[in-house]
Amino acid sequence: MDDSEFVLNQSSINPYILNIEYAVRGPIVANAQRIQSELDAGIPKPFTELIWCNIGDCHAMGQKPISFLRQVVALIVDPSLIESDSHYPADVKQRARRILDNGGGLQYSSEMLGLPVIRQDCANYIQDRDGVPCNPDSVILSTGAGEMIKELLQVFARLQPSASTVNGLQYGVMIPIPQYPMYSASITQYNLQSVHYYLDESDNWSLDLSELRRAYDEAVGKCEPRVLVVINPGNPTGQVLRKEVIEDVVRFAKEKNLFILADEVYQHNVYAEGAKFYSFKRALHRLGPEFSTTVQLASLMSASKGYAGECGFRGGYCELLNPDARLQSLLYRQLANRGCPSVAGQAILDVIVNPPKPDEPSFAEHEREKSQVLGDLKLKAQMATETFNSIPGMRCNPVQGAMYAFPSIELPPKLIEEAKAKGMQPDAMYCTALLEEKGVCVVPGSGFGQRPGTYHFR
Amino acid sequence: MDDSEFVLNQSSINPYILNIEYAVRGPIVANAQRIQSELDAGIPKPFTELIWCNIGDCHAMGQKPISFLRQVVALIVDPSLIESDSHYPADVKQRARRILDNGGGLQYSSEMLGLPVIRQDCANYIQDRDGVPCNPDSVILSTGAGEMIKELLQVFARLQPSASTVNGLQYGVMIPIPQYPMYSASITQYNLQSVHYYLDESDNWSLDLSELRRAYDEAVGKCEPRVLVVINPGNPTGQVLRKEVIEDVVRFAKEKNLFILADEVYQHNVYAEGAKFYSFKRALHRLGPEFSTTVQLASLMSASKGYAGECGFRGGYCELLNPDARLQSLLYRQLANRGCPSVAGQAILDVIVNPPKPDEPSFAEHEREKSQVLGDLKLKAQMATETFNSIPGMRCNPVQGAMYAFPSIELPPKLIEEAKAKGMQPDAMYCTALLEEKGVCVVPGSGFGQRPGTYHFR
Repeated sequence: MDDSEFVLNQSSINPYILNIEYAVRGPIVANAQRIQSELDAGIPKPFTELIWCNIGDCHAMGQKPISFLRQVVALIVDPSLIESDSHYPADVKQRARRILDNGGGLQYSSEMLGLPVIRQDCANYIQDRDGVPCNPDSVILSTGAGEMIKELLQVFARLQPSASTVNGLQYGVMIPIPQYPMYSASITQYNLQSVHYYLDESDNWSLDLSELRRAYDEAVGKCEPRVLVVINPGNPTGQVLRKEVIEDVVRFAKEKNLFILADEVYQHNVYAEGAKFYSFKRALHRLGPEFSTTVQLASLMSASKGYAGECGFRGGYCELLNPDARLQSLLYRQLANRGCPSVAGQAILDVIVNPPKPDEPSFAEHEREKSQVLGDLKLKAQMATETFNSIPGMRCNPVQGAMYAFPSIELPPKLIEEAKAKGMQPDAMYCTALLEEKGVCVVPGSGFGQRPGTYHFR
Repeated sequence: MDDSEFVLNQSSINPYILNIEYAVRGPIVANAQRIQSELDAGIPKPFTELIWCNIGDCHAMGQKPISFLRQVVALIVDPSLIESDSHYPADVKQRARRILDNGGGLQYSSEMLGLPVIRQDCANYIQDRDGVPCNPDSVILSTGAGEMIKELLQVFARLQPSASTVNGLQYGVMIPIPQYPMYSASITQYNLQSVHYYLDESDNWSLDLSELRRAYDEAVGKCEPRVLVVINPGNPTGQVLRKEVIEDVVRFAKEKNLFILADEVYQHNVYAEGAKFYSFKRALHRLGPEFSTTVQLASLMSASKGYAGECGFRGGYCELLNPDARLQSLLYRQLANRGCPSVAGQAILDVIVNPPKPDEPSFAEHEREKSQVLGDLKLKAQMATETFNSIPGMRCNPVQGAMYAFPSIELPPKLIEEAKAKGMQPDAMYCTALLEEKGVCVVPGSGFGQRPGTYHFR
């Protein structure tokens, strides 16, 4: 036999994975890692420090973790500290004890959906946020929000296109453009079809219902649209959707029988005057039982965003409303095969949804730290907008929420031609130059999607 | 429109998920949860306490966590304890400081494969274990071992059977019977074909090469075998494979161009006199460069097993040897879309592969706790074997390693007929009775697979 003959080769690989692109960790980031190693090795560059702006990791950017969150989880990791430590406030110890006493002793946890005590705390949080009831049975804890995006899309995945739907069409997942690349990558990975609806850059990246209809109508016949993804506050675009828009979207989803996948992980990140986070669940209820008891909705939340920014713990939840019984049962089968999410991740999420109360000793310090973080993020949102708008050739909508600015850039026709000649996206070429000449690592708009002929970066 | 018309229904669901079965969290476990709630509510039962034996979660069974592991991670979660705490030994603080100083400050970590410092520690551990070099670039950190099983099988998944392989055959994954149900469930989920090779119960669940050949030869033509899964020490069967057997398996894999997926998560759980863990990597090297530079191998390790038993942290690694460059690149694309594993999970794995050294203050206590845990597990392994063999109608091979006994049970023909009439597996019916009458929750052999006409439980 031939030793050079490997088990696998390009022709034998799952072809869908070949198309996965995840720009946030794409070639520019790989290039940045190489430059960082060279800087570390003392190789001179036009800059002394590399600025990483490719990923929404606040702590990596110097944001200080919220003390209360870390203190509670440290005690859950080592409960002996509850006795030996004299440094932590009493409410930290009480919080940790409560989780430990309810199955959170970092054992595997027999409940695949997460610890019941934490699912209940999430339900209380949702109920307080929306003013409508929340059943803890509809809350599923997850390894960050990303895991649930993939678990849900996997249920929709059409592994046997010709057998599972009418006319053998692939399922369509409607996603905003620009979007967070985990959606496009997962849609590719699971062999779904993406249906793009454009956000309106000229109107502060608003979601326009007529554009949603256009996208839907054009997709029908080419695929079978099933899922509607909405990211609010927007990533990478930073808009905060108005209540009326969300209600329109819900009506549209009901009309077309779409499953709403509401990515609401930035619900604590709202900065603009007059802007307010309004949940899809609240819209369902405001529209009445005809909607609140029928429209299928998955709302995603994460410990990685908000003021906590605890990316490293991989904690999140999904509230799943009105799932078809069969969909739910199948999702649960899939989740049984994942194991439980990290108990440390579950625990930090618990403290985020159940922060110190006014009569507790940690309250004042927790509020101070939280205001500091959110105040800093608000200031940075304003500064980013103003700075980009002061640069000739750049234009940036106000960052109302989330953690990113997505300015448009006017690129010289010569650069565009040069990029095309090299088979590169013009904005990727611009970002490469920004990295190599200025040491700033950003992600090109082409990684998130943009209207043809426009260029951006995040 | 019709309000009762949901977006999804049985006919529109991914058909492969319909077939996922994960016995460890199957119907008997759901039944046990109901019984537990009834016990909690004061409803009388023939027993006062339910004994959960369905899952390998040592801490849930009362095993005390190893102090050193928890202490290091607690400091990584809250670094302020390094200053304020007077209780922890100096080496705990030094260990935590080292990880914190190398990117482990619980930020997301820019490295999707895990923190480089921890991948290096894993490489050192593997090198010391096998006496052959290990490159940290081949080590991928993961959310437990289960995540890597699924990520790897997903790469092999044939979403377009007719296009991606010769003759349109599905890829085959060879798995032992009995096996750990995550393999069968994932094979189903990703639309691969399982190829069963039976372990020899009459020879202490040994892996027999002629049986491997039989299974392979019978599968060829029905599918295209690509992956060979070996679980050593065995789950649920508890055997520890001999060096010669492992080397035979490697030769066979090379001959047939199979990718070896070596599940070695129980490598610290070896109890029997004369039995010793021998890694697949070592076998590759012992057989010479013809093997060590060509045979594709993924070796899995987990923080959840061994003496640590830290299921709640979801930490693990995979060493990937000789991957086809295209396979590696595709796996990396997929991993970019998962985010990093939990940093707390990475950290606990680090301490497991890099335990206290003899000259460090925590060494003696760590050794004491480790010996205690492994001693208890060894004793339980012996007791389980002896007890089962003392019961008429039961027979159990010695538990050489891992954490489970898999006794065979003789079932009365009447029970077998009754079960068949009810459409149940006879051993599931036995286990249901064991649960309902005695309060012991075990998993029937049918969930792991067994030779037709034989019955077991784990």
